[in-house]
Amino acid sequence: MAQFINDKDATVIEAIDGLIKTSGGTLARLDGYPHIRVVLRTDWDKSRVALVSGGGSGHEPAHAGFVGQGMLTAAVCGDVFASPSVDAVLAGILAVTGPAGCLLIVKNYTGDRLNFGLAAERARAFGLKVNMVIVDDDIALPDLPQSRGVAGTLFVHKIAGAMAESGASLEDITAAAERVIRGTSSIGMSLDTCTVPGSPKEHRVGPGKAELGLGIHGEAGVQQIDYHNAEQAMAAVTSKLAAVMEPGSHVVLLNNLGGATELEMSTLANDLAKSAIGHQLQLIVGPAAMMTSLDMRGFSVSVYRLSAEDHAWLSAPCGPSAWPGCKAIKPVRVIELPDGLRPIQPIPSEHKPTAEFITRCCQILIKAEADLNALDAKSGDGDTGSTLAGAARALIGALDRLPLADHTQLFRAIGQELSQTMGGSSGVLLAIFFTAAGDAASSGLSMVAALKEGLARMQKIGGAELGDRTMVDALKPALDQLEASGLAQAAVAAREGATQTAHIRKAKAGRAAYINAEQLYGNTDPGAEAVARLFEQLAS
Amino acid sequence: MAQFINDKDATVIEAIDGLIKTSGGTLARLDGYPHIRVVLRTDWDKSRVALVSGGGSGHEPAHAGFVGQGMLTAAVCGDVFASPSVDAVLAGILAVTGPAGCLLIVKNYTGDRLNFGLAAERARAFGLKVNMVIVDDDIALPDLPQSRGVAGTLFVHKIAGAMAESGASLEDITAAAERVIRGTSSIGMSLDTCTVPGSPKEHRVGPGKAELGLGIHGEAGVQQIDYHNAEQAMAAVTSKLAAVMEPGSHVVLLNNLGGATELEMSTLANDLAKSAIGHQLQLIVGPAAMMTSLDMRGFSVSVYRLSAEDHAWLSAPCGPSAWPGCKAIKPVRVIELPDGLRPIQPIPSEHKPTAEFITRCCQILIKAEADLNALDAKSGDGDTGSTLAGAARALIGALDRLPLADHTQLFRAIGQELSQTMGGSSGVLLAIFFTAAGDAASSGLSMVAALKEGLARMQKIGGAELGDRTMVDALKPALDQLEASGLAQAAVAAREGATQTAHIRKAKAGRAAYINAEQLYGNTDPGAEAVARLFEQLAS
Repeated sequence: MAQFINDKDATVIEAIDGLIKTSGGTLARLDGYPHIRVVLRTDWDKSRVALVSGGGSGHEPAHAGFVGQGMLTAAVCGDVFASPSVDAVLAGILAVTGPAGCLLIVKNYTGDRLNFGLAAERARAFGLKVNMVIVDDDIALPDLPQSRGVAGTLFVHKIAGAMAESGASLEDITAAAERVIRGTSSIGMSLDTCTVPGSPKEHRVGPGKAELGLGIHGEAGVQQIDYHNAEQAMAAVTSKLAAVMEPGSHVVLLNNLGGATELEMSTLANDLAKSAIGHQLQLIVGPAAMMTSLDMRGFSVSVYRLSAEDHAWLSAPCGPSAWPGCKAIKPVRVIELPDGLRPIQPIPSEHKPTAEFITRCCQILIKAEADLNALDAKSGDGDTGSTLAGAARALIGALDRLPLADHTQLFRAIGQELSQTMGGSSGVLLAIFFTAAGDAASSGLSMVAALKEGLARMQKIGGAELGDRTMVDALKPALDQLEASGLAQAAVAAREGATQTAHIRKAKAGRAAYINAEQLYGNTDPGAEAVARLFEQLAS
Repeated sequence: MAQFINDKDATVIEAIDGLIKTSGGTLARLDGYPHIRVVLRTDWDKSRVALVSGGGSGHEPAHAGFVGQGMLTAAVCGDVFASPSVDAVLAGILAVTGPAGCLLIVKNYTGDRLNFGLAAERARAFGLKVNMVIVDDDIALPDLPQSRGVAGTLFVHKIAGAMAESGASLEDITAAAERVIRGTSSIGMSLDTCTVPGSPKEHRVGPGKAELGLGIHGEAGVQQIDYHNAEQAMAAVTSKLAAVMEPGSHVVLLNNLGGATELEMSTLANDLAKSAIGHQLQLIVGPAAMMTSLDMRGFSVSVYRLSAEDHAWLSAPCGPSAWPGCKAIKPVRVIELPDGLRPIQPIPSEHKPTAEFITRCCQILIKAEADLNALDAKSGDGDTGSTLAGAARALIGALDRLPLADHTQLFRAIGQELSQTMGGSSGVLLAIFFTAAGDAASSGLSMVAALKEGLARMQKIGGAELGDRTMVDALKPALDQLEASGLAQAAVAAREGATQTAHIRKAKAGRAAYINAEQLYGNTDPGAEAVARLFEQLAS
């Protein structure tokens, strides 16, 4: 699978530069490329406790995307899935740490622990106050005392970040971070592996399978399970969490591991709220991609027991747009449908001449069915005749419920009938034609002027101009002549317009727009032909 | 490719419910499931102009994700890639439209035009003021007068949304929306097709190819081009835009079509800023997934000529978290590296007994190389002996630059040498051991107490406890005995500790943690063995 990268080895620095350029001036970097890749806040004055995190890249937006007001002070970025060097971490610490000290927030991977750990030692040798916390929220490997650090790290970033922004002390922030770490549990699931830039993709997860309990570096999950659907996947994840959750209200973080669509993530959010732990979930962060594993089609769920204090820190405003906010989970509020969806039923009335006229028009169209289908077969799917004939038959069947004696209401009623009985675009377009004509008639226009207004509205919505090879090419000149010179001239004009459609090499609207010009040439547009036949036979 | 969905036909409504539940109470829906799927603001009082958009689903977060303060009033959601029905659109209009009227923002697809168009006619029949604008920002098909509506629609949502929130009139908002539509151009590129839920994936884009000029419904792009890298892909897109852009400053929207990683999108943002149109780009929205095509690994770029008025509307705060903000594009600010990265070089000094002691220790480790490698081969990759011997040889070679006469500084200097010459985790761990011991010695502790402090720090960062089958199992009892009873007892304790590692069935830290218990049993840990040999031979 190709990817949008350039030089594989420069991917991380190019992405960091892209992030900084589009940050609106809130981010900067240290002058240490290519080995030292530290992203930091531009508004930092070292007056408060600095928060430094980082680790391998490939987890974007973590961690550089969470640098900003109320979250991280700096992020130290390693290569994809590889820890940054001791020097890089040290540079980050030295760049942002003032008298208030610095907290390192490190995910529990050996490389990160060691490199951040040694950097902390070196920074302390300069007399700096540096604390370090190690996030180990993953519950996938219960037998291993050194659990991995995954998306629950975001709770630490947000709570410690809000505290630091408010001016809390290093001791208090460290204690809070350790409390969050102790109380946070996470587990992930994926339907596929991820694609490391420049490496071939490992096809490890077979069809019908999912991996449960995976890290964020493409390593295999603890178990492969049969995969049925989103609800079952969420149940598998939440049952693991339920086993370690305390009673009481929690905040939950629903993290996209990178490759799941928003449609899937919202479906999973719905299943999460309905799950066995749903009643314990008071607040949610996400669904959003926060701690990703490149393009892995998977998700993770992190839960943390909620206190009033943490609620406030989690809800505090912060700068990074990658933080999706922390919101209350609530039942779906359902609002009653508005009145007016059932169109006002017209009051039927009798008017013999009108009934006969409508019947005559309909019969003309019914008789033309086969010819129009044959014409349409040359430029479309050969159903124009059947569509029109079907609508005509339905209209004849509906005569006794039409307001035949009230021509203003009649236009609207015909529009309504057509929108219900005639499928496809043409049904909607004719419904618009008659409904708009009805509107115009009710405001006092003559019948013909009203029909012209209906045509204009239909053209605007359908987008067809004269010469675009549609029924408009016959209908517009016919209505113009009808107003000026009567039905006979209208029929002539309709036929002329229809005939001209055979010489249009390129349709510009409707489905025929997608057809090869040579296929169209010489064939009259079936819609225009229908209009011409209607006027001709009415005039005869 | 499996996906996180349940019943295919219920995907859209489940995703809407998930979105509403996690919206913090800001969203609701109309009671029209399954056919009428309208998402609306819960804080709406009909006092201002309502904005209604929508269309097929599969473009999340568009459009329901953009419902909220300062953007849309309601979104009408069709099935995946299919227009919503006339009734659904009408329900949306009727539910939110008050005396100030309603603007429909419709992407230029036939189904959407017709269904929104007819719904508008029906709403007008109720006396409501309803305007409709059609977004046609795609420039991929210059010959077709009816361009598609793609991600540029977001500019309309944001600008019209901010105006509506401020109380502007329907006429003014409509005029502004039409101005934005006229001035907006978009084009997209993708490396792959998208996966429609429940349908097999079409593998249309071959290896080494990309599609340029695609819509957002999985339809083929206007052309397939050779794909080289992100920069060339961005150049292909921006050269199309350059051809239609006016001079002057623009706002640009960089949209993830769904499946590109954040690493790729940031890389593309960097390439966009460096591109031929880069100097004209003043503001950016994104990179972010805004108008997606499910999981398509692609992006689109939309540009709009910027005026001061639109700048303000685009930057106005708004509710939906899917809107990533509109930020200034700025060059990367580079901050000088902090002092202190080059560790303070110790002042060399001579001290013959210390030089001899260090040399003796090093020679013990050099002599043990082959034995330790053989032991390591049973639990690791067989290089413990070589790693230690290599570091020992390097240390002997460094004797003349060490502060041999100043034991406090000596610990730190040894730590520094090891961190530079000894690879892997063990090099960092021993560097932490000696650096922390140096810190402790400089604060007045005895040599042995300082070494114990160094061990404690190394254990904290490395995570190894007694009994975890590491060098700690020999080193900790040895240092304890060294303090209490002298070197001979320390050697006995080290050997006892090392011997016990052979009976530990499960390593809990270090790489051996991943090895099968039965493979470990009966073999002494090579790190512990090294410590035991060191103490034994020093004591002899």
